[in-house]
Amino acid sequence: MSELFVRTLREDPADAEVPSHRWLVRAGYIRRAAPGIYTWLPLGYRVLRKVEAIVREEMAAIGSQEVHFPALLPKEPYEATGRWTEYGQGLFRLQDRKGADYLLGPTHEEMFALLVKDLYSSYKDLPLFLYQIQTKYRDEARPRAGLLRGREFVMKDSYSFDVDDEGLQKSYDLHRDAYIKIFNRLGFEYVVCAAMSGAMGGSASEEFLALAENGEDTFVRSPGGYAANVEAVRVPVPEPVSFEGAPAAHVEDTPDTPTIDTLVAVANERVPRADRPWQAADTLKNVVVMIKDVDGTRSPWVIGIPGDREVDLKRLSAQVEPAEVEPFVEADFAAYPALVRGYIGPARVSAGPEEPTVAVLGLEAASKIKFMVDPRVVSGSRWVTGANEPGRHVFDLVAGRDFTHDGTIEAAEIREGDPSPDGSGPLHLARGIEMGHIFQLGRKYAEALGLKVLDQNGKLVTVTMGSYGVGISRAVAAVAEGTCDESGLAWPRALAPFDVQIVIAGKEDAAADAAVDLARSLDQAGIAVLLDERKASPGVKFADAEIMGMPTIVVVGKGIADGTIEVRDRATGRRDDVAVADAPGVIMARVHGTPAID
Amino acid sequence: MSELFVRTLREDPADAEVPSHRWLVRAGYIRRAAPGIYTWLPLGYRVLRKVEAIVREEMAAIGSQEVHFPALLPKEPYEATGRWTEYGQGLFRLQDRKGADYLLGPTHEEMFALLVKDLYSSYKDLPLFLYQIQTKYRDEARPRAGLLRGREFVMKDSYSFDVDDEGLQKSYDLHRDAYIKIFNRLGFEYVVCAAMSGAMGGSASEEFLALAENGEDTFVRSPGGYAANVEAVRVPVPEPVSFEGAPAAHVEDTPDTPTIDTLVAVANERVPRADRPWQAADTLKNVVVMIKDVDGTRSPWVIGIPGDREVDLKRLSAQVEPAEVEPFVEADFAAYPALVRGYIGPARVSAGPEEPTVAVLGLEAASKIKFMVDPRVVSGSRWVTGANEPGRHVFDLVAGRDFTHDGTIEAAEIREGDPSPDGSGPLHLARGIEMGHIFQLGRKYAEALGLKVLDQNGKLVTVTMGSYGVGISRAVAAVAEGTCDESGLAWPRALAPFDVQIVIAGKEDAAADAAVDLARSLDQAGIAVLLDERKASPGVKFADAEIMGMPTIVVVGKGIADGTIEVRDRATGRRDDVAVADAPGVIMARVHGTPAID
Repeated sequence: MSELFVRTLREDPADAEVPSHRWLVRAGYIRRAAPGIYTWLPLGYRVLRKVEAIVREEMAAIGSQEVHFPALLPKEPYEATGRWTEYGQGLFRLQDRKGADYLLGPTHEEMFALLVKDLYSSYKDLPLFLYQIQTKYRDEARPRAGLLRGREFVMKDSYSFDVDDEGLQKSYDLHRDAYIKIFNRLGFEYVVCAAMSGAMGGSASEEFLALAENGEDTFVRSPGGYAANVEAVRVPVPEPVSFEGAPAAHVEDTPDTPTIDTLVAVANERVPRADRPWQAADTLKNVVVMIKDVDGTRSPWVIGIPGDREVDLKRLSAQVEPAEVEPFVEADFAAYPALVRGYIGPARVSAGPEEPTVAVLGLEAASKIKFMVDPRVVSGSRWVTGANEPGRHVFDLVAGRDFTHDGTIEAAEIREGDPSPDGSGPLHLARGIEMGHIFQLGRKYAEALGLKVLDQNGKLVTVTMGSYGVGISRAVAAVAEGTCDESGLAWPRALAPFDVQIVIAGKEDAAADAAVDLARSLDQAGIAVLLDERKASPGVKFADAEIMGMPTIVVVGKGIADGTIEVRDRATGRRDDVAVADAPGVIMARVHGTPAID
Repeated sequence: MSELFVRTLREDPADAEVPSHRWLVRAGYIRRAAPGIYTWLPLGYRVLRKVEAIVREEMAAIGSQEVHFPALLPKEPYEATGRWTEYGQGLFRLQDRKGADYLLGPTHEEMFALLVKDLYSSYKDLPLFLYQIQTKYRDEARPRAGLLRGREFVMKDSYSFDVDDEGLQKSYDLHRDAYIKIFNRLGFEYVVCAAMSGAMGGSASEEFLALAENGEDTFVRSPGGYAANVEAVRVPVPEPVSFEGAPAAHVEDTPDTPTIDTLVAVANERVPRADRPWQAADTLKNVVVMIKDVDGTRSPWVIGIPGDREVDLKRLSAQVEPAEVEPFVEADFAAYPALVRGYIGPARVSAGPEEPTVAVLGLEAASKIKFMVDPRVVSGSRWVTGANEPGRHVFDLVAGRDFTHDGTIEAAEIREGDPSPDGSGPLHLARGIEMGHIFQLGRKYAEALGLKVLDQNGKLVTVTMGSYGVGISRAVAAVAEGTCDESGLAWPRALAPFDVQIVIAGKEDAAADAAVDLARSLDQAGIAVLLDERKASPGVKFADAEIMGMPTIVVVGKGIADGTIEVRDRATGRRDDVAVADAPGVIMARVHGTPAID
């Protein structure tokens, strides 16, 4: 310990938002070099390499072969697939001395596809699994939470190459199984969720989320086992309703009702319905946003959702990727006078002398504004919504009869207790950290880059790819996050930088001698021991041992007079006095997870 | 082999200049991703990781601790030491989305110094050795020779931190010893040379050069054991000569003598000397170059060297680093009319009616031009040199009497047979590849970044640093370069991706069965076996085995009818027929380097 390059800190780092970040810095595992960019100190690097080793073993077990690509990549392949542009500001771009464009690789689908194209040409060569453990770069807008969302990070990325869809499914399943083994070994609680493919493209994808209160991702689970990232949840769609016999739409004065709450109150007062009071869910709330395409074009979208829900920006963003969602600001309203703030609606209704005439118009037809609706806005559903005039709303506006739309979109928030798509009951929401993501990419990249092989009939066919990622550096933080407590880190045995920390807590030579002997015999048995022989008070040493988090802490102190030492379990806090002679056996049993002999 | 991700190539890659590059590409170890940027295929990556493992073991053996810095680094620390500018175009620079400046780390002295400053504060914490194995970036003007001079490459860089010079010397010696162990294990012939510190600064440095005909570095060795990179050679300086009684300088017409050869011829014809003919070594050749400083300022330097030698641009460049040497072009001569091309000299001599008057003027005094001379231009030495007028030279111009200079410079070429600085005899020149470089940096970085600790007297003292590098990816190429032959790669056992390649060279089931059995028993004994079970002709398989270069090649073919297989040694070509039953023992003995039992 007196030689180990480490200093524990008494204070939390100013920028630490989550416990793993706080403790990894305070315990001397990592140091910040720049926003979202970290240096690994000896303790942290030992943990990182243990994660790498586990991942390598499980990749080898399914026959995946390790390669290593550069991080500094030429622009051309990423231009061929469109990602040079699609990644937007998230990509670190640079030029070399000759002015050629390069990027720091955020992920390597293009490079892998080109490499396989370079070497292979026949269906006989497939399936093929390749992977690398490599440093990746993403210029995050808001790097945060230490290693959890950094700008330079270590990932394991794998790719599968198959000649047909059936092969891809098999390769995907093999990787899924390998991931389950990896995450079981890393020792965190996780859930496999349906996920959005996002900018990667492809047909199917799942995420491995570590359960974590501070996780950035929200996911849902149903009693029946359905699990999905909240971005990927598809709400159950009601059956269409016949609108035969539905009352005609009618416009009503609803002064001072720019919000759903005010509207419901006024409606119940002025236009009461017979069966029950109006509710927020009877209204159609039309939210307007700007969608900025990758080429910079901004176009307004109106999104119609049931009035009792908010738009979930993360869900909306996931649907429109790689385009971005921007707020619709004052100046935008000025540019689109058709949009009457607080009273936007999908149809323009002329109130004639006898009864109103509904002009069945999607917003787009009227004003080039795209009108997307929640999937629950099915044909025949009846709504109270804006009449596109200040202070007026239209009632009994029927979808499919009185208005059309440009498509459905999953933008409304998902709430605890919402019905599950699998019909098994209410959804339960929780938070997690994305630890792995597996994609059935299909032929998107192979097509863009011309990766074809001859099939059994001698015909050129485009290869179908899968892509599979594990956040290696993120795993270090996720395990820390899931295992730390109010005193510091508490590593599971598989990842701890040292198996045992021996603290000399007595000034007597006998204590020091016993500690050194014990350390030596454990070391000879292949156990990684950190011996705290510093000239510091026992209190300082105990606190450091708690912060640093080795699974077993051995205290050699006063007890030595009676021939005992104390063996502590960092995670449970259990403490046992053990005879000096028995100590090596007891400790080895704990380290190896065999039943203790004490 | 049918599953290994590899394809051997029949043709040399177009850009391959050296054998290692050619064979590493043809044998399927690496692939070019961009100029000077390579992808590691499975075979190559296995070799790279073996080099890493050897380096890690030897670093751990001297108590160096592994850390890991980012490759993407903020500008500020490099600005503090001046290297942000000094690295010039050799640095990859970029900006993040917020416009902050970053670089891709070419080496990490600054970051290590800051990290130690962050954690440590007392002499008690020192000495400290830290290292990392990490991807580095340099935007080479001319990336070449595959992995030997790339723009993205893997380096092990270590740093030592000491409180005083004596400590630094000890740390340096420990690292030097560790490097000797590393390079012995990697198995190349190398020489430890005195070297220039260059842009790193510092007082002493040595290079580990692998002997290689195609090496970029030229070094010298003397019979007495002196060894130095040619850039670092200090020529033996003659004793000054008294100029009492030396004849006065005299200007002579020497028409049409813009070169040394023409000058010597004309001098012998028109101004013959009594004792012997004029020789090129009697003349002082004044070469003019432009020195471009890191801030872009260009200033002319005249370099005076004995006329029988050329200026060695690499030696000159090494002296002026981080400034750069540029040619002195037509336009430059126009801007400096004092420089009469072909007749440049260090003094202006007025030929009076009786005898000439020498105006003792360094070039600088006359024209702001810097005049540097070879160390052999000692006080009292007499020269024939330009008279700064077309067609005229001055004879018997005496250094220290008739002209001064602005300093000496080691810019003249070193030649085979030159006297050694250690006085042990003639220098022998050879070429090599720089595999390691160790520096006594001293306090340059610590001072610039404020790295101080309290010494034993409680006084703040600046830490003194050493820096030690090994080219990890370059080692792969250097070993390939040193061991390959006309048929392909031929790995030493310590680095081979597989210990044994078994070639099934018969169509009979018996051959395949025997090969599989052998592979299995070797595998169970912990030997890495590559089994070539492809449906290809024996000729193709033999050629591939030769190209790929595993140290032991086992051929299971026709001999199987007689119960024998053939064991080949890739490096020596030795072939032995071995009884099937003996084969595992024989092969294991070869792999483990124990005497073969056959």
